[in-house]
Amino acid sequence: MTAPQLTEIDHVAIAVQDLSSAIDWYASMFGATVEHREVVERDGVEEALLKVADSYIQLLTPTRDDSPVAKWLEKNGEGIHHVGYRVAAVGEVLDSYVAAGGRAIDAAPRPGSRGTTVAFLHPKGAYGTLIELVQE
Amino acid sequence: MTAPQLTEIDHVAIAVQDLSSAIDWYASMFGATVEHREVVERDGVEEALLKVADSYIQLLTPTRDDSPVAKWLEKNGEGIHHVGYRVAAVGEVLDSYVAAGGRAIDAAPRPGSRGTTVAFLHPKGAYGTLIELVQE
Repeated sequence: MTAPQLTEIDHVAIAVQDLSSAIDWYASMFGATVEHREVVERDGVEEALLKVADSYIQLLTPTRDDSPVAKWLEKNGEGIHHVGYRVAAVGEVLDSYVAAGGRAIDAAPRPGSRGTTVAFLHPKGAYGTLIELVQE
Repeated sequence: MTAPQLTEIDHVAIAVQDLSSAIDWYASMFGATVEHREVVERDGVEEALLKVADSYIQLLTPTRDDSPVAKWLEKNGEGIHHVGYRVAAVGEVLDSYVAAGGRAIDAAPRPGSRGTTVAFLHPKGAYGTLIELVQE
């Protein structure tokens, strides 16, 4: 039996075409406001994080046509893109995941937004779910 | 400006074909264990709720071929199905959402799993996201 590794739903990521419009919509419909906004060049995305308790709604839009999120939007349209789970030690969880036969996208932890360290796991073999591990 | 309505990410729902297999996978990969399991006849689903801090991973599988989740799985395959946000008063949030031009699936709040009261909002006009409002 594995010890509990997931300490929080860090974020639910929603891919959108127009970040400003989505931000306005969440504010007007639910009073959810932007706590952090960041362009992540490496991933070709701009993110807006709306705080909900100790978690975030992460609104995500591509900054260039060849970013993975641009391709995802082209195929799927707007919607829930991935879920991020907070962990104490991303490297350890990633290693144990791969050792247990899980397929990772990132071979090693790397910088995420807002100063976090992250690793993405592949949806294949994970019940179609793109999972991001997030260490604060 | 709307006052903040979302008090917690109540759950991220993952639609799966085989609930027992998915439960075993989350336990062995992440040490996430079942806190609550329930058949919701009205929705034609069986749910398993894995607790993560004050939120849940909701594993969801159809109990009959004509349930909406069965049709969703047929079209999309396994993956993230919806996100549930906890609110203090589901009726009030639903009413204000509809009054602001939002499209709801449920015209009025109704019973959800584990004794909650819930209402689903339509993904159309909500950035492709099926949103469930959950009052404990």
